[in-house]
Amino acid sequence: MPDSAISPVRAGMRVAIAGVSGYAGGELVRLLLNHPRLRSTPPLLLGRLGETDAAPVTLTHLHPHLSGLGAADQMQVLPFTWEQLQRQSVDLLLLATPHEQSRAWAPHALAHGMRVIDLSGAWRLQQEQNRAIYKLEDADPSLAAALQGEAVYGSPELHAAAIRKARLVANPGCYATSILLALAPLVRAGVLDPDHGVVCDAKSGVSGAGKALTPNNLFMHAADNLSAYAVFGHRHTGELLEQLGLSADQFQFTPHLLPIPRGILSTIYVRLRQRSEPAAIQAVFDRFYAEAPLVRVRRSPQLPQIQYVVRSNYCDLGFHLGPDGRRMVVVSCLDNLLKGAASQAVENMNLMAGWDQAEGLR
Amino acid sequence: MPDSAISPVRAGMRVAIAGVSGYAGGELVRLLLNHPRLRSTPPLLLGRLGETDAAPVTLTHLHPHLSGLGAADQMQVLPFTWEQLQRQSVDLLLLATPHEQSRAWAPHALAHGMRVIDLSGAWRLQQEQNRAIYKLEDADPSLAAALQGEAVYGSPELHAAAIRKARLVANPGCYATSILLALAPLVRAGVLDPDHGVVCDAKSGVSGAGKALTPNNLFMHAADNLSAYAVFGHRHTGELLEQLGLSADQFQFTPHLLPIPRGILSTIYVRLRQRSEPAAIQAVFDRFYAEAPLVRVRRSPQLPQIQYVVRSNYCDLGFHLGPDGRRMVVVSCLDNLLKGAASQAVENMNLMAGWDQAEGLR
Amino acid sequence: MPDSAISPVRAGMRVAIAGVSGYAGGELVRLLLNHPRLRSTPPLLLGRLGETDAAPVTLTHLHPHLSGLGAADQMQVLPFTWEQLQRQSVDLLLLATPHEQSRAWAPHALAHGMRVIDLSGAWRLQQEQNRAIYKLEDADPSLAAALQGEAVYGSPELHAAAIRKARLVANPGCYATSILLALAPLVRAGVLDPDHGVVCDAKSGVSGAGKALTPNNLFMHAADNLSAYAVFGHRHTGELLEQLGLSADQFQFTPHLLPIPRGILSTIYVRLRQRSEPAAIQAVFDRFYAEAPLVRVRRSPQLPQIQYVVRSNYCDLGFHLGPDGRRMVVVSCLDNLLKGAASQAVENMNLMAGWDQAEGLR
Amino acid sequence: MPDSAISPVRAGMRVAIAGVSGYAGGELVRLLLNHPRLRSTPPLLLGRLGETDAAPVTLTHLHPHLSGLGAADQMQVLPFTWEQLQRQSVDLLLLATPHEQSRAWAPHALAHGMRVIDLSGAWRLQQEQNRAIYKLEDADPSLAAALQGEAVYGSPELHAAAIRKARLVANPGCYATSILLALAPLVRAGVLDPDHGVVCDAKSGVSGAGKALTPNNLFMHAADNLSAYAVFGHRHTGELLEQLGLSADQFQFTPHLLPIPRGILSTIYVRLRQRSEPAAIQAVFDRFYAEAPLVRVRRSPQLPQIQYVVRSNYCDLGFHLGPDGRRMVVVSCLDNLLKGAASQAVENMNLMAGWDQAEGLR
Repeated sequence: MPDSAISPVRAGMRVAIAGVSGYAGGELVRLLLNHPRLRSTPPLLLGRLGETDAAPVTLTHLHPHLSGLGAADQMQVLPFTWEQLQRQSVDLLLLATPHEQSRAWAPHALAHGMRVIDLSGAWRLQQEQNRAIYKLEDADPSLAAALQGEAVYGSPELHAAAIRKARLVANPGCYATSILLALAPLVRAGVLDPDHGVVCDAKSGVSGAGKALTPNNLFMHAADNLSAYAVFGHRHTGELLEQLGLSADQFQFTPHLLPIPRGILSTIYVRLRQRSEPAAIQAVFDRFYAEAPLVRVRRSPQLPQIQYVVRSNYCDLGFHLGPDGRRMVVVSCLDNLLKGAASQAVENMNLMAGWDQAEGLR
Repeated sequence: MPDSAISPVRAGMRVAIAGVSGYAGGELVRLLLNHPRLRSTPPLLLGRLGETDAAPVTLTHLHPHLSGLGAADQMQVLPFTWEQLQRQSVDLLLLATPHEQSRAWAPHALAHGMRVIDLSGAWRLQQEQNRAIYKLEDADPSLAAALQGEAVYGSPELHAAAIRKARLVANPGCYATSILLALAPLVRAGVLDPDHGVVCDAKSGVSGAGKALTPNNLFMHAADNLSAYAVFGHRHTGELLEQLGLSADQFQFTPHLLPIPRGILSTIYVRLRQRSEPAAIQAVFDRFYAEAPLVRVRRSPQLPQIQYVVRSNYCDLGFHLGPDGRRMVVVSCLDNLLKGAASQAVENMNLMAGWDQAEGLR
Repeated sequence: MPDSAISPVRAGMRVAIAGVSGYAGGELVRLLLNHPRLRSTPPLLLGRLGETDAAPVTLTHLHPHLSGLGAADQMQVLPFTWEQLQRQSVDLLLLATPHEQSRAWAPHALAHGMRVIDLSGAWRLQQEQNRAIYKLEDADPSLAAALQGEAVYGSPELHAAAIRKARLVANPGCYATSILLALAPLVRAGVLDPDHGVVCDAKSGVSGAGKALTPNNLFMHAADNLSAYAVFGHRHTGELLEQLGLSADQFQFTPHLLPIPRGILSTIYVRLRQRSEPAAIQAVFDRFYAEAPLVRVRRSPQLPQIQYVVRSNYCDLGFHLGPDGRRMVVVSCLDNLLKGAASQAVENMNLMAGWDQAEGLR
Repeated sequence: MPDSAISPVRAGMRVAIAGVSGYAGGELVRLLLNHPRLRSTPPLLLGRLGETDAAPVTLTHLHPHLSGLGAADQMQVLPFTWEQLQRQSVDLLLLATPHEQSRAWAPHALAHGMRVIDLSGAWRLQQEQNRAIYKLEDADPSLAAALQGEAVYGSPELHAAAIRKARLVANPGCYATSILLALAPLVRAGVLDPDHGVVCDAKSGVSGAGKALTPNNLFMHAADNLSAYAVFGHRHTGELLEQLGLSADQFQFTPHLLPIPRGILSTIYVRLRQRSEPAAIQAVFDRFYAEAPLVRVRRSPQLPQIQYVVRSNYCDLGFHLGPDGRRMVVVSCLDNLLKGAASQAVENMNLMAGWDQAEGLR
């Protein structure tokens, strides 16, 4: 698809969010209501699968804390229909929907001339064996394959140029973002030795699992507890392998459920190809993120903590180099609902619209 | 029913628990597996409504933390059937079941010659207007009315003699226990002035709401939060009015959901009939609980805290008398699953069996 | 002091904050760095008592989460000296300092021509018997008495006109704000019957106790716990009595320490002079707060929860009227560091500067 | 020292605990008050460094939750003096004291004919370079060296025979216990390939840091947070290297501070020498712990969680073998104050006294 086919997003761009009722959807609404470029045209808010027949509900019924924010008290969340989207001349559709729904809806939206940012895992994976874990079913497999090939992995630190021109952006996973931002500088600089194995021990707050009424989401399960899950089998593994260019046997990732509402801390163990010094590694990170508005690199030996990123749009990075100058621990923190989801989606929207990457996020 | 109809419980008493999968049911199992009098005859464990058709599950599948405790690793939780109970010659049935089920099952159990301790609200209320909130339906209303009249409110500090002889004991509610133990000594001593109003502001950990998959039981709802609920309408109000002999306009009770797994703290505001001194009030409490094994009265101005009762079998009480010698704040703490449920049920069992009231609870 | 003596605050007003290292001080810095009117002249940041000799520290060393916010990464926290304040031509001094320090410093600042907003309890109380609890000592008692008479209690919902012209504003306490905003509409409307007693059962997150290294501030004390404290003797009682015009025997207030970082919920029990209806009470609140930008009145029977106000600038109010139409429960929630401290100080600053009351707070 | 020099501990053994005020000390008291062999001779309770001059305090003043437990309400905590210990003919001294104090006191106690279990790190390390981190100073270096050589590392699963005869037992660290019990079976069975590196990512509740009034122990630091600390430099590394026979470059350990009061979960990444099957690894663990009363091995793929071990005396182990049959994740959980401290000390006491290893711990 030639670039010219992409209509530049208008100043008064019309944005719609589907899946407003979830945690990430709610944060997305909050960010867009605060966004300086969208003040005159507030986003269209839509429900999600299984909610499409429901009568409109007020936004503040779903998210009482948003009351008082801009036009929030007057806003309705409408049942999802394509007529609705077309009647409102939506330019950009943000999908905060389950992956089955995102997979089904993105082709329609593109066919209707909208651009799409999908926050689910539906469009992140180019390799079929990685995508298999989502058990996706396509109505039109060849169209889906074409769109998959066109989809851009929405990591603004890695793919800004492609995102600007993309019709379909696959917003990265929350765990994946925290690990990718920690490792990409080392991989790109060629200092990481992948053959010695990369171990990612990640811990996430409960909102990462969404709003579903499942036993693991109960207070009595998560409070005063810590548990590992999806060992050797978490869905975000695939996108990390693809983005980092690692093979499955070089990479290990274990997620844990933390007894807190929000925040991810990933502790990442790597080995360098050659003996190095802290200052040299610091320079690798600093250079890589010199222009990145939402990544904060701490001075070694300072390390990030979850409390400093919760409810912020940042990913914080820090590292310790071992006494041997080869083994290294990188620590990465972010808010799973923000830089791990909604804020990163807004960055992608900003890039697609030709605005400043961090507009509305500072 | 004459006392003689009650067979003395045998030393090797056979006890069954129905509703083992819940939080209170799990604590009950733990306490009975630790009970010195039941070592030779471990309790029969049964499921609850909707689980009755399921195949047996192992106890440690439901409650992994019980592994290693006595015979726990060998125990099965069986589907509930009356045949099962009779085949095992059960003497005492403990119902940790929803109130609808308890209301339906208790008459059957009594008819089969078993004695019953019910942990739900089904049998606590003598006055129909108080019971209405449970929307109970009786297959045989006149039998139910007779049994209701016979049912003993299972507060061992107030009704030990009746409990010893009872066929049907209605174990008090968790909030009700914390408030009742704080107020009963003052009411019985005639020092409380009910006409000035009694205000009970109570706060409970999340386990009080049970294991149901409801939005309010989600970690994301309860964590970092506090909320009042059931204002002017909580189900435990009725049993407090009946037990304290207060009228609805003299008494106010507001429960709150605390962001902790376990524990209740009730802050209770009362007015005394006459100006008093701390020492005199202390004596009222001390005398009332002189023989009570599971009530600890703190020395004023020390006050109980939830941390000192969680996972203990105690109710802790403390008070502050105001500078006017008339207004008083009483603070009461207990573990809602223990003294507020399972431990109190074991006290009742001990009394019914003729054992020491605190056997297995120290 | 004639109004004319108060120089209108300049558009590029120069603001200083003393006591930046505390929790409320940190929030104040965050709000001022975000404040549209202060973008060109960022606030001067100063330490507090016992820190005045220390070398400057960077702001982000004290508050790492502020990194990236406006000029935050370039800002220093300087030792407090009067020379510093004069050299910078400070117009308005915000004191986030302990009350002893605020009591000593405010007269100096006023004498140097600055206006002052004090976040401590030093200047809130007009009646000596209420002030006694702070054990304040004045170098010049007659000057202090004069300034005390001039000081305005900084509740913008109650005293906006006086605040606009004030030289010295005493920012309300966090508990006091939550209770005052719940009761003032009822008192002013004459519907509350004070003779029947007002009971305020309040619960606060741990940040309300400040950053001091005390046993009660330890994680191991506060976590999984709830405790009442300062029964019949909390310092905020006096300012509530003065502001509400109640006598000590009409009013009772018990604070509790919640196991959460931030947020206050106050449950308030009152009696009305006459039988009323929910709609009438709703109207009392709605009218009173019709123009208040930072008070959200919920529709009864909806009630506020801490989760909806944490990290917001709002106070949320809701109520339940009892079945007798006389007894009423009012629930009030706010973030103790924001509407209970820093946001309210910014409202006061806005009023003093002639700006919109909620500038920088939406 | 010949075995014969060790007087068999008497049935009515006299035990003293020094350092009763800390969290581990408090748990030790609780366990000993519950211990069937010590019912007739309750332990002597002593303070710790800096508290030695203080007047006696009641046990329940320090630990209110212990009220009601055995003789607890009558017990005093006395200032530490050698006269006190001798007057009471103490046989066994349990030191729940800081390592400097334990290092200084153990030689005295041994010289007075007592046996010693030390819960600090003072006597755990045979290699001087590992011990250096504690900066220990010995009054009599050659005596200290001799005693160090004699000291037995108190892991009952590894060294039961030596513990039985020991005069001086060094109770393992909490993190060290969780990791050691996970790795020892694999190392002893020769299946672990140490050259590929062992990565231990461990997470502990706040009580692991003790009761000190430090910023990191504040609720406001730990709540809603997670942070890594002591990367490449935690004190428990040395004892793990010595016990596992690994070299520093084969082993990496990163501790994290969890926002919960109690519990450790260690996620451990290893590689096997040869491709294996889950059943074979399960058998390695099962055989190793067949007789261990306080280790529970879960069936793979079940994994331990902190909630199932908190307030229990167990260490729970579980593992996942990767799809390559070589990489493996072992998860280990325990309560840092119990199996990670006090319960393990009681096991050691039981062994030293010739009692059943788990006496008083089931």
